[in-house]
Amino acid sequence: MPPSPIRKLVPYAEAAKKKGIKVYHLNIGQPDIETPKQILDAVRNFDFTVLEYSHSAGNESYRRKLVKYYKKAGIDVDHHQIIVTTGGSEAILFGFMSCLDAGDEVIIPEPFYANYNGFAVAADVKVKPITSYIESGFALPPISAFEKAITAKTKAIVICNPNNPTGYLYSREEMETLKEIVLKHNLYLFADEAYREFCYEGTHTSAMHLKGVDENVVLMDTISKRYSACGGRIGALVTRNKAVLDTVMKFAQARLSPPSFAQILGEAAVDLPDNYFDTTKAEYKKRRDLLVSRLNAIPGVFCPNPGGAFYAIAQLPVDDSDKFCQWLLESFSYQNQTIMLAPASGFYGTKDLGRNQVRLAYVLNTEALSKAIDCLEKALEAYNNTVPAAVYAQTTN
Amino acid sequence: MPPSPIRKLVPYAEAAKKKGIKVYHLNIGQPDIETPKQILDAVRNFDFTVLEYSHSAGNESYRRKLVKYYKKAGIDVDHHQIIVTTGGSEAILFGFMSCLDAGDEVIIPEPFYANYNGFAVAADVKVKPITSYIESGFALPPISAFEKAITAKTKAIVICNPNNPTGYLYSREEMETLKEIVLKHNLYLFADEAYREFCYEGTHTSAMHLKGVDENVVLMDTISKRYSACGGRIGALVTRNKAVLDTVMKFAQARLSPPSFAQILGEAAVDLPDNYFDTTKAEYKKRRDLLVSRLNAIPGVFCPNPGGAFYAIAQLPVDDSDKFCQWLLESFSYQNQTIMLAPASGFYGTKDLGRNQVRLAYVLNTEALSKAIDCLEKALEAYNNTVPAAVYAQTTN
Repeated sequence: MPPSPIRKLVPYAEAAKKKGIKVYHLNIGQPDIETPKQILDAVRNFDFTVLEYSHSAGNESYRRKLVKYYKKAGIDVDHHQIIVTTGGSEAILFGFMSCLDAGDEVIIPEPFYANYNGFAVAADVKVKPITSYIESGFALPPISAFEKAITAKTKAIVICNPNNPTGYLYSREEMETLKEIVLKHNLYLFADEAYREFCYEGTHTSAMHLKGVDENVVLMDTISKRYSACGGRIGALVTRNKAVLDTVMKFAQARLSPPSFAQILGEAAVDLPDNYFDTTKAEYKKRRDLLVSRLNAIPGVFCPNPGGAFYAIAQLPVDDSDKFCQWLLESFSYQNQTIMLAPASGFYGTKDLGRNQVRLAYVLNTEALSKAIDCLEKALEAYNNTVPAAVYAQTTN
Repeated sequence: MPPSPIRKLVPYAEAAKKKGIKVYHLNIGQPDIETPKQILDAVRNFDFTVLEYSHSAGNESYRRKLVKYYKKAGIDVDHHQIIVTTGGSEAILFGFMSCLDAGDEVIIPEPFYANYNGFAVAADVKVKPITSYIESGFALPPISAFEKAITAKTKAIVICNPNNPTGYLYSREEMETLKEIVLKHNLYLFADEAYREFCYEGTHTSAMHLKGVDENVVLMDTISKRYSACGGRIGALVTRNKAVLDTVMKFAQARLSPPSFAQILGEAAVDLPDNYFDTTKAEYKKRRDLLVSRLNAIPGVFCPNPGGAFYAIAQLPVDDSDKFCQWLLESFSYQNQTIMLAPASGFYGTKDLGRNQVRLAYVLNTEALSKAIDCLEKALEAYNNTVPAAVYAQTTN
């Protein structure tokens, strides 16, 4: 099991805080946006006296509500096709465990959400990364790259749309390309759509919108980012493939039920006014615009404009962002403040890729975000004056 | 993945209810005992505005509280030795995944909690059952049975104490026997102690009380039954083995965090008055006494007296309890009521064992329990008059 690139520097951040330094957390997708009060109130107002197991697939009332939510997103499913999970994490784990056998291979465009590695280890399957590049804004690799990676053991492709960690929003054409590949090679298409609502350029094409791939598509979803409700640990696995649903239900029964309190919250969330996402999306877009423009104004920094989610990957003028990110916490401060970033190397499956890249989560308000980038700017100046010239020379290649 | 013996008859129960028949649920360990109001209130009174991820190991404040809880149970650990999990289920899964490799074997006295099978499938390990017998009240099998089952691939023994599904409470001597075996063969001892507080005959010996096995013992725990809080989905993995903790933390980080709301509930539960368990335990003991005496008064039924938990396994004068349990829901009612039981075959790893046994969870109040046993009594009379004589003849063998 590899350590999480998002969390592995936590001890250094804790040490910096103990020294009295303020740390801006751009390393982790924990939004500062408030959870809507009415859905928190729904939990406060629960009226049961016994905190019982729910149905293993989640409360039927919640699943019926989710049908309405998905309908609004242009996805037609019934409540039997939805299994409520403990976060998106469990949806991914159940998908892997139910559809793949030990030794099977799953193709994932890299950089990718690092925890897929953990679930792959748990399910004893092999991740085969195919590279997307910062120069093209992390667009879908060409069909030829998929074809090259596919073997007799390949059983699935994972697509995160919009993407974590790149923020890339896959187009309708790219999704149709994926459809062709999965049909041709009889693969599952695991679609992680945790950031569905956060699209700033163009519209979202869900894998569930694709026609003729009902048996292939498994949607892995979560309310964590959608409603700023990460701690609830409520997600869902959605598919029209009956055999997959039956197998997932066995795993769901083995772990008894998803958490009860947060199902109440999730159910209430479906009744939020339709404009709820407008406000949240506008806020994230403002942050993205600030982040991307500020980053690209720093000498030697390049950050493509992400179309969705709330992440960006930037290339920095450093030789090794793992070292740089640690140095930011261990040896640097500006006005008694510093910034915590996620080194991008941990999001790549291929060794030595992403060494000069970092992932930034724009989960702080614009004021904090601006101060955080001030820190980064000053840090890059200082770092490249303190590290040996020979090392810096390499980074400009 | 085998289906859950506890839940597989649910569709028949639903059909019975649709016909207007009242179903007494003795199939599942869902207590009717109220969750203590003060711990539900702790959740109602939360004061955060963003439902954030917690620490992957669980809130530090909760882990520090748990240290106090364990101290009262005679278990000395610090908060670094506790990882909060999503129910006891996840503690078991993490234990299996962290300590065992694909193909490893784990020995479990049977009948055993059927969901161990699911976690074994998930971790790709093999369960080797060794049989305990109803005639001895399901006491620990002799050392010779363990020795016979141990191979080079054996890595662990699972002990559930007090036991689900048998209710058997392992003695200090039996726990010392297990210690000898795990030390001799260098095995892990996975201890599921979900029912620690519910011991009616003698005292509980935790695997964590054993001396000299700090590297071997992994405790899998949950608040579900302790505080009648099954829907919270909060448990804990506790061990003094540093390497195991480090590996479990990687799995914990991959799934981000345990549910936030129920951690508040768990933390408040540690402050319940010391006499909280006295009341609950007295209630369960009353039910057990009623259940066991009523069952043993029915011709052809034998039920050993369980020393703990809230389950009992009874032998019935039927040929196949799977069929009988289905018949109870499909074809029987007494005063428009029937009873749902868990066929015991699903708790055995060895084929064809437990065919004439059922598990009963005494999770209903004595009045309901008494009516449920009325149903069972009438049902056995009716069943043995309706099934072909030849079939019944077999059951008496």
